[in-house]
Amino acid sequence: MRSASAGPEIERLITLLAKLPGLGPRSARRAALHLLGRRDALMRPLAQALGEAADKIAECSVCGNLDVSDPCSVCTAPNRAENAICVVETVGDLWALERAGAFRGRYHVLGGVLSALDGVRPEDLNISKLIERARADAVEEIVLALNATVDGQTTAHYLADRLEGCGVSVTSLARGVPVGGELDYLDDGTLAAAFKSRSNV
Amino acid sequence: MRSASAGPEIERLITLLAKLPGLGPRSARRAALHLLGRRDALMRPLAQALGEAADKIAECSVCGNLDVSDPCSVCTAPNRAENAICVVETVGDLWALERAGAFRGRYHVLGGVLSALDGVRPEDLNISKLIERARADAVEEIVLALNATVDGQTTAHYLADRLEGCGVSVTSLARGVPVGGELDYLDDGTLAAAFKSRSNV
Repeated sequence: MRSASAGPEIERLITLLAKLPGLGPRSARRAALHLLGRRDALMRPLAQALGEAADKIAECSVCGNLDVSDPCSVCTAPNRAENAICVVETVGDLWALERAGAFRGRYHVLGGVLSALDGVRPEDLNISKLIERARADAVEEIVLALNATVDGQTTAHYLADRLEGCGVSVTSLARGVPVGGELDYLDDGTLAAAFKSRSNV
Repeated sequence: MRSASAGPEIERLITLLAKLPGLGPRSARRAALHLLGRRDALMRPLAQALGEAADKIAECSVCGNLDVSDPCSVCTAPNRAENAICVVETVGDLWALERAGAFRGRYHVLGGVLSALDGVRPEDLNISKLIERARADAVEEIVLALNATVDGQTTAHYLADRLEGCGVSVTSLARGVPVGGELDYLDDGTLAAAFKSRSNV
């Protein structure tokens, strides 16, 4: 981390940059030099964008999405179906589904998954608000779009139990061969799931 | 790059983060979410550090190093030898040599290397100031610490020519087996150089 002759201002910048995911001490130094060579084109705009985003962006009190307005633009969009809520772990997952244009209903961001190892309990997640939303008359379906990991699936089972009696159908994403996937490289679990859920051509 | 439901403030932040070396669109999104989850611990301090560094840090008019003072702290350090100047391509290289504690003289940052392909000519580099410094009475040795690339070595030869008649000895870094290096994995050029420059044990 030490850059010796670089002054404390550069040191501090490098230390902070190195805390970003994907950057280590070495790439943080490279990024700092890159920024110092592009002050007006990149460094000052980035400083401003960081400050503005930190001040303006807040968690949506309905779904947990991040936006400048509360409720967020997804929760208030008039052209989105109100009868389906897609449950995701993180805002990053919400963005991924939006990029894919896979879903045109509302979302609910859990903020993580249950994990005995990491000590994440149901009360640590945004679950009670989900149950409340699921009880609303307009809501007919809850799609559990959680990661296909052990913790993700444990959480999905827990949520399915909790949502029983809320008068909604609870669904989850299909398992199968990913688009462009080669059978030879797929794991046994995926192949078995794809076989089990096979459909007519 | 599109994150759909994310507002323009987040979009802008992601676009700027993606311009950092080592971050692409995907890792920039991850970094943005990481920052938004650590606003007071990381996001606001980073915004401030970027702004301050952009305003305060300037190129040293003597050697080309980056520092808050001009001349820089290396040029003004009383405990560093004034009879040797180490020529490096970039400030990053200067930092690397300082981290290694390999040199206790002064530096000269070229700002790049000659390159016919990229159209970098001698007048594009910080060369005339180097010749000027080399002519000073106190200076006895110029160490060329340029990268062992084709362009780096072309530049070293060019500089050695230009420095002739300045009354300094021009040296360059040794070639050989890097510490911890395994012969089997080294290229032929390095092995040949290491053999040629072998020394008594």
